Amino acid sequence: MADASDRSNRFLRALARQPVDATPVWIMRQAGRYLPEYRATRERAGSFLKLAQTPELACEVTLQPVERFELDAAILFSDILTVPDAMGLGLHFVDGEGPKLARPVRSAADVARLGVPDPEQSLRYVPDAVRLCRRELRGRVPLIGFAGSPWTLACYMIEGQGSRDFSRVKAFALNEPAAMHALLDVNARAVAAYLAAQAAAGAQALMVFDSWGGMLAPAMFEEFSCRYLAEIAALLRDDPHARDLPLILFSKGANASLEALADTGCAALGLDWTITLDRARRRVGDRVALQGNLDPATLLASPDVIRREVRRVLDDFGPHPGHVFNLGHGITPDVDPAHVAVLVDAVHGKIAA
Amino acid sequence: MADASDRSNRFLRALARQPVDATPVWIMRQAGRYLPEYRATRERAGSFLKLAQTPELACEVTLQPVERFELDAAILFSDILTVPDAMGLGLHFVDGEGPKLARPVRSAADVARLGVPDPEQSLRYVPDAVRLCRRELRGRVPLIGFAGSPWTLACYMIEGQGSRDFSRVKAFALNEPAAMHALLDVNARAVAAYLAAQAAAGAQALMVFDSWGGMLAPAMFEEFSCRYLAEIAALLRDDPHARDLPLILFSKGANASLEALADTGCAALGLDWTITLDRARRRVGDRVALQGNLDPATLLASPDVIRREVRRVLDDFGPHPGHVFNLGHGITPDVDPAHVAVLVDAVHGKIAA
Repeated sequence: MADASDRSNRFLRALARQPVDATPVWIMRQAGRYLPEYRATRERAGSFLKLAQTPELACEVTLQPVERFELDAAILFSDILTVPDAMGLGLHFVDGEGPKLARPVRSAADVARLGVPDPEQSLRYVPDAVRLCRRELRGRVPLIGFAGSPWTLACYMIEGQGSRDFSRVKAFALNEPAAMHALLDVNARAVAAYLAAQAAAGAQALMVFDSWGGMLAPAMFEEFSCRYLAEIAALLRDDPHARDLPLILFSKGANASLEALADTGCAALGLDWTITLDRARRRVGDRVALQGNLDPATLLASPDVIRREVRRVLDDFGPHPGHVFNLGHGITPDVDPAHVAVLVDAVHGKIAA
Repeated sequence: MADASDRSNRFLRALARQPVDATPVWIMRQAGRYLPEYRATRERAGSFLKLAQTPELACEVTLQPVERFELDAAILFSDILTVPDAMGLGLHFVDGEGPKLARPVRSAADVARLGVPDPEQSLRYVPDAVRLCRRELRGRVPLIGFAGSPWTLACYMIEGQGSRDFSRVKAFALNEPAAMHALLDVNARAVAAYLAAQAAAGAQALMVFDSWGGMLAPAMFEEFSCRYLAEIAALLRDDPHARDLPLILFSKGANASLEALADTGCAALGLDWTITLDRARRRVGDRVALQGNLDPATLLASPDVIRREVRRVLDDFGPHPGHVFNLGHGITPDVDPAHVAVLVDAVHGKIAA
């Protein structure tokens, strides 16, 4: 591995819990609506799906934040629902309402019809975008590939859309556990194949977003979400391209189960802002690196407040190796890009101009 | 205090961590839309606000769940936003969008204009409803009075309505901490006066709902929410009617700060379902009773699953005094009332018919 003082490898060194010259930082949803250049490309694409499914456009927005800010990683621009879409559930977006699936899963028979999509066929645009991004990045920073977790995909697959309390998917899990486990197993195999294809195409780290795992009580989380995160980790260890890549798991809100998450075989855990990094670190010990965890709302405050709150997160983690700075959730569209520059400089320990 | 085998005092004995013949149970939002008799009264009232602000109607719906089920407590039917409404912010409801405040707080000058409403004047309909409920309950079960927390009220007062990420109120707290503390202090004094008036009118336990405390990082939670919960507890200890009443605090999602919550001087903590009761009990020790914490979505599952999950929560707490069974959040409108009867019987250890 290269030396520690280089933007191109701080991120991977921190994930490996090796010393770095400055804490690496990237931002969930960094290629997003808060950036005017993103909005321009999105406009040109015509729709969100077209943007995500056209490798040249996806590559363009993936690189935008890395060119504007001194970020230490790029993350592929895509959507977690590409996998259920490739399974035939009919992903579409309704203005102001978020993603929807036209053919939700409502029974054991619906589950039995699902198969693992071949990522180089129906999801070909994703590895194509990965290849293009790697070429355009020219080694400046590593590229993260990602997918949704089996549980989080199941939430959308059963509800057909987002939900406030996900009661339909929870009732399905409680009333039809065998069908739910069959669904989670096909999702886990599909996600592992999808991540392995991104690894083969050149992704240098992999992340699984378990956006709705934290809606579950701890026993249900371990049965219906964490177990399938461990299955993905095991499948990736058997893959020739993915086995050497660090895997980051982010189960938002599932702070009761950090120990179980750290035992899945992942390299790092993403954390939301409702737990301090020092407490999290004491609970998981040296098993994994930690990624997080500034409240995204902090970016709406003044530059001085942003610097102070960044310092608080860095101090919470302390002078140990193994921290990747991030927000505790995606950046929101109302953020001033100048505030992101303040954050990145503060993380790197640069004095403000 | 009366004996342990009587529905009329199980709840208060459990809050005092005294032995009981069966775990007491009540359900957040038990007077609500899942009940056909509630929907009929609500229809007759014409609007939600009219229902909440007419003592005879509020009393009628308060008693409905207690008459239908073997619940161990009644909770006054009201709304947490009655206090900002009495402060002049103009509470109204927009169909399908939830509560709104016509004149939100947006500056230090707006905060400076706020005062503590006299509960026997502008909020008179609340102590009137308490008096009526006590008379109609005839000692069958205790009556709980309640209010919103200073932080949660501030969320609505600044945002003007609910929010997904409450970024406006968080930015206000970060950018204008002095104005935010002034707002939280007036809210704390208003809530304490309001709860004291409910105590004087006959409420037998008091609860504060901190619905949005869990949106804050731990340091901000302790500065902007927990501190004002402690202020309310201190003010109530100095009140001749409230000082002997148990105070229950429920900061949904703030599980990182249970120790700080237990140190506020409250009698009990409400818990959501994302932490097990045994872990919570180990963290707070014998300082407080615990109330909770079944996932409300469980009520959409089959009776057998409901019984199993109730058993799991009871077993999590274990054979100690000091447990009040409840959901981890309000019951949802799509629940079959027959499932509530299953839950109540399961908590009380009764064999199903």
